[in-house]
Amino acid sequence: TFSRGIQTVTLIPGDGIGPEISTAVMKIFEAAKAPIQWEERNVTAIKGPGGRWMIPPEAKESMNKNKIGLKGPLKTPIAAGHPSMNLLLRKTFDLYANVRPCVSIEGYKTPYTDVDLVTIRENTEGEYSGIEHLIVDGVVQSIKLITEDASRRIAEYAFEYARNNQRTSVTAVHKANIMRMSDGLFLRKCREVAENFKDVKFTEMYLDTVCLNMVQDPSHFDVLVMPNLYGDILSDLCAGLIGGLGVTPSGNIGANGVAIFESVHGTAPDIAGKDLANPTALLLSAVMMLRHMGLHGHAKKIETACFDTIRDEKVLTKDLGGNAKCSEFTADICRRVQDMD
Amino acid sequence: TFSRGIQTVTLIPGDGIGPEISTAVMKIFEAAKAPIQWEERNVTAIKGPGGRWMIPPEAKESMNKNKIGLKGPLKTPIAAGHPSMNLLLRKTFDLYANVRPCVSIEGYKTPYTDVDLVTIRENTEGEYSGIEHLIVDGVVQSIKLITEDASRRIAEYAFEYARNNQRTSVTAVHKANIMRMSDGLFLRKCREVAENFKDVKFTEMYLDTVCLNMVQDPSHFDVLVMPNLYGDILSDLCAGLIGGLGVTPSGNIGANGVAIFESVHGTAPDIAGKDLANPTALLLSAVMMLRHMGLHGHAKKIETACFDTIRDEKVLTKDLGGNAKCSEFTADICRRVQDMD
Ligand SMILES: CC(C)[C@H](C(=O)O)[C@@H](O)C(=O)O
Ligand SMILES: CC(C)[C@H](C(=O)O)[C@@H](O)C(=O)O
Repeated sequence: TFSRGIQTVTLIPGDGIGPEISTAVMKIFEAAKAPIQWEERNVTAIKGPGGRWMIPPEAKESMNKNKIGLKGPLKTPIAAGHPSMNLLLRKTFDLYANVRPCVSIEGYKTPYTDVDLVTIRENTEGEYSGIEHLIVDGVVQSIKLITEDASRRIAEYAFEYARNNQRTSVTAVHKANIMRMSDGLFLRKCREVAENFKDVKFTEMYLDTVCLNMVQDPSHFDVLVMPNLYGDILSDLCAGLIGGLGVTPSGNIGANGVAIFESVHGTAPDIAGKDLANPTALLLSAVMMLRHMGLHGHAKKIETACFDTIRDEKVLTKDLGGNAKCSEFTADICRRVQDMD
Repeated sequence: TFSRGIQTVTLIPGDGIGPEISTAVMKIFEAAKAPIQWEERNVTAIKGPGGRWMIPPEAKESMNKNKIGLKGPLKTPIAAGHPSMNLLLRKTFDLYANVRPCVSIEGYKTPYTDVDLVTIRENTEGEYSGIEHLIVDGVVQSIKLITEDASRRIAEYAFEYARNNQRTSVTAVHKANIMRMSDGLFLRKCREVAENFKDVKFTEMYLDTVCLNMVQDPSHFDVLVMPNLYGDILSDLCAGLIGGLGVTPSGNIGANGVAIFESVHGTAPDIAGKDLANPTALLLSAVMMLRHMGLHGHAKKIETACFDTIRDEKVLTKDLGGNAKCSEFTADICRRVQDMD
């Protein structure tokens, strides 16, 4: 690895267990001498002019300046009409690609041992357009919006991701047999982009068939690209195959180099502040971030230490089957990272 | 069991392996002395007046008269604008509930051993409305239509199904956090109907969470009710958990006692006519049909024989891991059925 000097990353610790697992990540990054400096920002939606909910300006400015963010779980406020903070972040920074690598973790038992795939979800439109109408009493319509531009953009991202990450195939997941125009447009763009990536194999599959095959034998899948809602579903399904949201990293990639990496589990208020949380999902998201920044050496080191700790089975948090505290689990990873020097 | 005399059922053998597996079912029904007489009808879409595709009148009349149908796989014609025959059947007979019991089959190994759930899918609207528009060049919308009537109807079906089948809970599956109006309406109707079924537990879950939990531990689920597309996805996922579409039965229930039971696997043209097909999915669909008709004794007998043959592992078709022919597998089930007398 080469150093490009220290880079500043916006850290959004989040709510509930967010601060604890963020501290864990910072400690491990320090142990690994990752050339990262954190700029902590709070993200609680505030009401802007005109009554619209928005991200606090300090957080927004920090992200716009640093481009790269790491984020813990955020609680969705209960106020009526309040948007999900996650959706608001995706929208505010036009984070168009949601990327989730799902890789079986050795030592963490699930019914599957050979999962190694990546879901790439269009993150800005589709069923998440938010456009809905009451047509007449008792009849409601929701609009799924698919555009040529967003479809091409996500398809290009998927193929570039495959090429840059030594992956060999991209599968477009769709229901164009039912939504002929919208999923049809998405699929057409995928096919067009595939023409420019002759080195990457391209296939198409129905979403229902993917789900069926996925639970029967996930080892066949590689990179999967799909519209928003299908990605929401399939990324969670795949997370389940490898052990759940507590061990699954996630990245939201935007235009102009902006990207936010995040753990997608909840805030776990029941164990918050008790030093019981599992920082793995946030840590592996931070590892994705390092790779995104070109810091492959540091990424590999931290990832290896984390997986070694899990495989070793001696110091595990409760959800991973052990009875170690978050700080003990963190210390074990730090020790391994330092031992590698 | 009491006999109500012989009832006539419309049999749509279908394409590819359809005729073989239909013959298998007829033989087993004969061996079990099921009081059923078959009226075979071909279903190949024809162009009606005005150029609209329709079900052949002889098939339609037979179904309207007999009310109950059993159907093998149908190939989707390739002609542009030709509808899926399955969708056309659902529409023609207003088959509003798609019901798929998924139960682990002893002796047929999958990563899961304790699946015992039923997906109940709204079968007439939602994302399957078929309404789509090109807004401007490169921008397409598909409309998801949710109505109060269809939502109440499917919710009522689900709760009644639970009550009549000794099931204890119904879970409404939705994304009302995103589609607040449409899935919101669906959910509201489920809640209202739940009020009238105090003996059945009611819960609500997000579709993504259901998928995640389902692959981690399906044993917690019981009856699940959901809008059309979610049902398409989740029913296939659940079929995957127990061994795939080759062993999963399905029923489409309509108003006024009309119902079509069907295997949902494909026509398998590669093995058609070779006596290699597995008739289990169609047979178990026929068992669902018997139960629907109140013929519980015959249903139990045939189901037991089928599961015994599979558990025994001696006479299995290729897809089930053996090398028996369809006719040999069928004969083994017939023998067991006769031995029960
Ligand atoms: C929190 C929720 C709005 C979100 C979604 O539905 O996209 C979540 O499920 C996710 O996958 O990030
Ligand atoms: C054949 C196809 C149109 C259908 C659907 O999408 O509903 C199938 O997947 C099903 O589940 O019956």
